[in-house]
Amino acid sequence: MKALLFTGNQSFRLEAQPPQAPRPGEVQLRVAYCGVCGTDVHIYHGAMAHRLRLPQVIGHEVSAEVAAVGDGVTGWQPGDRVTVRPLQPGPDDPSDNGQRHIGKNLTFIGIDSPGGMQTHWNVPAHTLHRLPDTLSLQLGALIEPLAVACHDVRLGEVQPGEQVVVIGGGPIGMLVALVARQKGANVLVSEVNPARLALAESLELATANPKEQDLVSEVERFTNGAMADVVFEVSGVAAGVQAMTQVARARGRIVMVAIHADPKPVDLFRFFWRELRLIGARVYEPQDFEEAIALAASGTLPLDQLITQVSPLAEAKTVFETIDSNPAGMKYLLEVN
Amino acid sequence: MKALLFTGNQSFRLEAQPPQAPRPGEVQLRVAYCGVCGTDVHIYHGAMAHRLRLPQVIGHEVSAEVAAVGDGVTGWQPGDRVTVRPLQPGPDDPSDNGQRHIGKNLTFIGIDSPGGMQTHWNVPAHTLHRLPDTLSLQLGALIEPLAVACHDVRLGEVQPGEQVVVIGGGPIGMLVALVARQKGANVLVSEVNPARLALAESLELATANPKEQDLVSEVERFTNGAMADVVFEVSGVAAGVQAMTQVARARGRIVMVAIHADPKPVDLFRFFWRELRLIGARVYEPQDFEEAIALAASGTLPLDQLITQVSPLAEAKTVFETIDSNPAGMKYLLEVN
Repeated sequence: MKALLFTGNQSFRLEAQPPQAPRPGEVQLRVAYCGVCGTDVHIYHGAMAHRLRLPQVIGHEVSAEVAAVGDGVTGWQPGDRVTVRPLQPGPDDPSDNGQRHIGKNLTFIGIDSPGGMQTHWNVPAHTLHRLPDTLSLQLGALIEPLAVACHDVRLGEVQPGEQVVVIGGGPIGMLVALVARQKGANVLVSEVNPARLALAESLELATANPKEQDLVSEVERFTNGAMADVVFEVSGVAAGVQAMTQVARARGRIVMVAIHADPKPVDLFRFFWRELRLIGARVYEPQDFEEAIALAASGTLPLDQLITQVSPLAEAKTVFETIDSNPAGMKYLLEVN
Repeated sequence: MKALLFTGNQSFRLEAQPPQAPRPGEVQLRVAYCGVCGTDVHIYHGAMAHRLRLPQVIGHEVSAEVAAVGDGVTGWQPGDRVTVRPLQPGPDDPSDNGQRHIGKNLTFIGIDSPGGMQTHWNVPAHTLHRLPDTLSLQLGALIEPLAVACHDVRLGEVQPGEQVVVIGGGPIGMLVALVARQKGANVLVSEVNPARLALAESLELATANPKEQDLVSEVERFTNGAMADVVFEVSGVAAGVQAMTQVARARGRIVMVAIHADPKPVDLFRFFWRELRLIGARVYEPQDFEEAIALAASGTLPLDQLITQVSPLAEAKTVFETIDSNPAGMKYLLEVN
């Protein structure tokens, strides 16, 4: 087997290794594609170093076929086409409130343990979701980020006919926009990168560029003054946090998708004055994976257009460099074979 | 009739005036008691000057008897005991989302129009709620702030057995704590003022003083590690905003009751990481008044203990000075006759 080892300091080493047999409860996957997540790029730049054990394989947006099953595993057999929900819940903490997908002792597979950028990958059987035969393995590698979007839209309780503003048109923001539109919402994407704006427009999403336009006026026009029922903050920047409270209508829901490493000023007066709601949303639950798979298999989302590039595993370093130099790109897939 | 005119610059003038007949749709009230709200104190210090027309009567926490009814008013007759929901909705704005109690064109009676610190007060009939005979007129003047608390607790969806932390033990915080306890919640009040802490303890509420104790540890102990299902931020200070995200459990609801005039740093990462929710809550809807009246009439809340002092209208200036010099006080009522 081949494993792409992240060795720290923006470096990788592709290494031949003997495959390990799956332990009890595990399944050995033959990985097909592994998408590069923003988290992987952060790791590449040195983030989360305390959670990794270098050299380590990273990556968690995977499509694969089952190669072998460990003792005690039922329901899976070699050849099954799958994707992985890369969450390993730990012991329950009373403060978890039964929310195992965000539990205090949760570990994330591909960060806290080895990931999918290797040809043979052993994962707990409980993490698997079946991919229908009609879904390509390339699109199968998009299920994980699509499940994030399904989770965000579900927690935002987006209803048909509602007005939705997505602040930030990167891969997750674009997927959120597409899922919200699929729910029957009218969606506007706020983004500053011209290439991403052009992509959003080619997907027939309404757009605004807050560097060139007054976003509040644009949302007023888009919604005939009603303003947004649901806002998704996916930008991760202070300007997005400022805008999110301005474009929401009374009792509007603001879904916090982005990771804001540091506390940022929030217009709490407006939360009070307009009875706004903020809804934190992180990763996914099993039902979000099932919804993402069904949506992708339905063929109604233009997911193909979100794949910027597919590259061999051996070219990973070049792919990470390309992502760094091309902020307009969307999903980059590594072909793992 | 007598009217207490606020003349600006921390000054009042008690003036004899001829009573005005109620206009069509209005009811003339004979005011019994008028509570002093924090908002009145802010006005006394010069806030909201652009919304007042000096000299103006302020005050909006009122108990009264109907003295006369204007043309077209049905359902009310002289002698009826009432309180006032001091909201005058304006024309609907599309961004109001049907929430008339916080509409863009809403005006607040007692700020944007004359208030209840006068013996005869004409108000729109639609603002009235009937007080049962069993409820004293002094407690009747507490219905308006109690309705705020009912609204906050309702929007926070407090359930029996839930763990609740109220940050800030002023009049509204204390009422929120009492209403939440009435719903069957286990309530802890975080407050720094020793006299308010002593009052909370005399009401058999659990307390913590974050100036002397680590609030997170106290909430951990109080909840056996479960942390808070619902947090009410009623302090209005940065330390409260910082604490609110620390004491909430996964998917915990944080109700934003306080008025934060300026944007404050918020731990948005924790909203994401623990899927927290922030719920803005402002004033009340009719059902909150009905609930407040029923609660007060039931006699199950120790509302008497929240009345710090009852003073004649003529002593208003002294009352406002006392409030300024005694941050431990709770509700001050003016007897209006």
